[in-house]
Amino acid sequence: MSLIVQKFGGTSVGSIERIEQIADKIAGFRDRGHDIVVVVSAMSGETNRLIALAHEIQDQPVPREMDVLVSTGEQVTTALLSMALAKRSVRAKSYNGSQVRILTDDSHTKARIREIDDQRMQADIADGFVLVVAGFQGVDENGNITTLGRGGSDTTAVALAAALKAQECQIYTDVDGVYTTDPRMVDGARRLSKVTFEEMLEMASMGSKVLQIRAVEFAGKYNVPLRVLHSFEEGPGTLITMEDKVDVETPTIAGIAFNRDEAKLTILGVPDMPGVAHKILGPIGESNIEVDVIVQNVADDKTTDFTFTVGRHDLLSAEEVLNRVCSELNAREVRSDNKIAKVSVVGVGMRSHAGVASQMFAALAEVGINIQMITTSEIKISVIIEEKFLELAVRSLHSSFGLEKEPENECAD
Amino acid sequence: MSLIVQKFGGTSVGSIERIEQIADKIAGFRDRGHDIVVVVSAMSGETNRLIALAHEIQDQPVPREMDVLVSTGEQVTTALLSMALAKRSVRAKSYNGSQVRILTDDSHTKARIREIDDQRMQADIADGFVLVVAGFQGVDENGNITTLGRGGSDTTAVALAAALKAQECQIYTDVDGVYTTDPRMVDGARRLSKVTFEEMLEMASMGSKVLQIRAVEFAGKYNVPLRVLHSFEEGPGTLITMEDKVDVETPTIAGIAFNRDEAKLTILGVPDMPGVAHKILGPIGESNIEVDVIVQNVADDKTTDFTFTVGRHDLLSAEEVLNRVCSELNAREVRSDNKIAKVSVVGVGMRSHAGVASQMFAALAEVGINIQMITTSEIKISVIIEEKFLELAVRSLHSSFGLEKEPENECAD
Repeated sequence: MSLIVQKFGGTSVGSIERIEQIADKIAGFRDRGHDIVVVVSAMSGETNRLIALAHEIQDQPVPREMDVLVSTGEQVTTALLSMALAKRSVRAKSYNGSQVRILTDDSHTKARIREIDDQRMQADIADGFVLVVAGFQGVDENGNITTLGRGGSDTTAVALAAALKAQECQIYTDVDGVYTTDPRMVDGARRLSKVTFEEMLEMASMGSKVLQIRAVEFAGKYNVPLRVLHSFEEGPGTLITMEDKVDVETPTIAGIAFNRDEAKLTILGVPDMPGVAHKILGPIGESNIEVDVIVQNVADDKTTDFTFTVGRHDLLSAEEVLNRVCSELNAREVRSDNKIAKVSVVGVGMRSHAGVASQMFAALAEVGINIQMITTSEIKISVIIEEKFLELAVRSLHSSFGLEKEPENECAD
Repeated sequence: MSLIVQKFGGTSVGSIERIEQIADKIAGFRDRGHDIVVVVSAMSGETNRLIALAHEIQDQPVPREMDVLVSTGEQVTTALLSMALAKRSVRAKSYNGSQVRILTDDSHTKARIREIDDQRMQADIADGFVLVVAGFQGVDENGNITTLGRGGSDTTAVALAAALKAQECQIYTDVDGVYTTDPRMVDGARRLSKVTFEEMLEMASMGSKVLQIRAVEFAGKYNVPLRVLHSFEEGPGTLITMEDKVDVETPTIAGIAFNRDEAKLTILGVPDMPGVAHKILGPIGESNIEVDVIVQNVADDKTTDFTFTVGRHDLLSAEEVLNRVCSELNAREVRSDNKIAKVSVVGVGMRSHAGVASQMFAALAEVGINIQMITTSEIKISVIIEEKFLELAVRSLHSSFGLEKEPENECAD
């Protein structure tokens, strides 16, 4: 018998009807002889309802009490799903974060898991119970309720899978897997049967929001095989796992990711001297604005140009900060542009395949797309382009790298 | 500084607006230098909402999971009230049953408190916190969530007051105290400034549903002074406490209680032999029907008549059982009557005052009310009468015992 951890998000348990469907699904796995630990989120809408109650009282509710409040959402789901399983003669038992016990630090509303006590769970699994665990929550060492932040249920599932040495951690969601790119944009987008943790991280951070980044990092760190599947449709989904031995058959590129939520800021005519990058990005960071791509041009005469991108919602405040910095540094001018987008090719295969960058640039040039900025990592090349060319760029790259075709060595599992 | 435990029920915390009002009230107590432990129920309607969800899944939901489900209701209130207190610069901290820890037996949905750990609470009180504790819930020794059954928040409050050696346990409700009888029935009904635990028990079980019986028993057992007050109106309420030294000034009667929810069953012509009462009431008890007043008439010839009362909703099933018993015992006939009511005079003073019974019977006779059954305890005399005479009986008794007048020795506190 193998142990599987399964996570169902808020939409999958959003009504009694759906909870009953999920119970059917779990009962089926049970019939096939699997040990099952289920992690659930709050019923969709419930967390927002609770947060709204708190905001009627305080704009900035006390974080400790916020955690006490919202953690009830997942607890409700664990009880209801356990009842639905009992109705199907599946012995089930709910667990909240404190009962497991999922020990976290004391950073309320964004706690990190430190340790998971698996003894009680192992005993109940050995007794034949399906365990239904509340996602997203834990306790600190003083027994205060903590939460892991939005989407933290994925992290709970991966952490439980690691602690219980599960064979697989299955994340059930509203898509049937990870795609080579967004199928709404490219008709030929193809579901990957397998992708590496690193590729998944690059894809996730680029806007393919199937999984929480922290959960993928955690799964990579503890080598927990992670599978993304559709909650209500049958199918093998996508397995996210360690990189296989790299050989010539490894596909060069896993997928094309993109992100529209970018805006570009340039400060022109900055005196070229040591520490200038810090003088520009320091105040931006202090204003809690996250910076993505950063490019500093080669010094021309005694000044340089400095360009970076931020999330679009941060553009106005970033501009304000930058105007202040501009006059302090005696720089010439600040320019901003929110009509840009980022496109990336991602794949561990590019490590051993030269020429990915030039193939990418050639494909874009062929359709007349001008590249504004370039940034690279070991398994990813990203370019900033004009937003209106985004779809054209993604389609051209998808076809140029032959992603619509199933690679010969990648067999469905 | 004195420690006060205050309990607010579901209606008192039924909306954010009311939670803010309660927070104002508690902040006021705090300003006057009191240490405060607050016990709260779920916001009104919330427990029913959760139970309805469970019943969509199962007619008889798994009791363990039912407790996991409904206990979230009180937890939500503790968080919201703590936030409202923080907003008023009152340092507050929420506690659920497992955090306190309120140890109970493992009878899910109707658990009994075994032990309360007061260490953590005492430390927080010493640190200047107002504690906001979830009523109605605890944990068993394996850490499973339990609940005390409906209305159990009163019991939580009394148990905390006992454990913390509080000066007083205040139960805030939608009435401003305990009355000599129902003010809706008798204009001259008067709020008692004081009543004994025993009187309160007799009043409560007779339908004056201000307090949960178990909470009063608990308060009596641990000698916790209990006060019933109105949540949103000022006033001293009613103090429920140990019997004072009985002296001649003690008022004879505390109040007139009544209950319309009674039905009478008589089995006629039962062979008069040992064990017959058991043969009749045994099957009734096995059908989970609670019996109230029981009267067996003196044997006439070789048969006897046996009469008892049950709750009206149990009348049909009790009749069914009794018809079976009737033929088994070769008794003559079963008669039933649901047009009856019970009226009681209650008072510890009647222990030292003879003639209460005769005064009661005289008062009823004077207005032409026929008594069908009589039952007595040390501090209570109850009669069963025709329901249509109920109001007349209560008014006559209230006036006959002079309850509309403030007793001379009973000073408002």
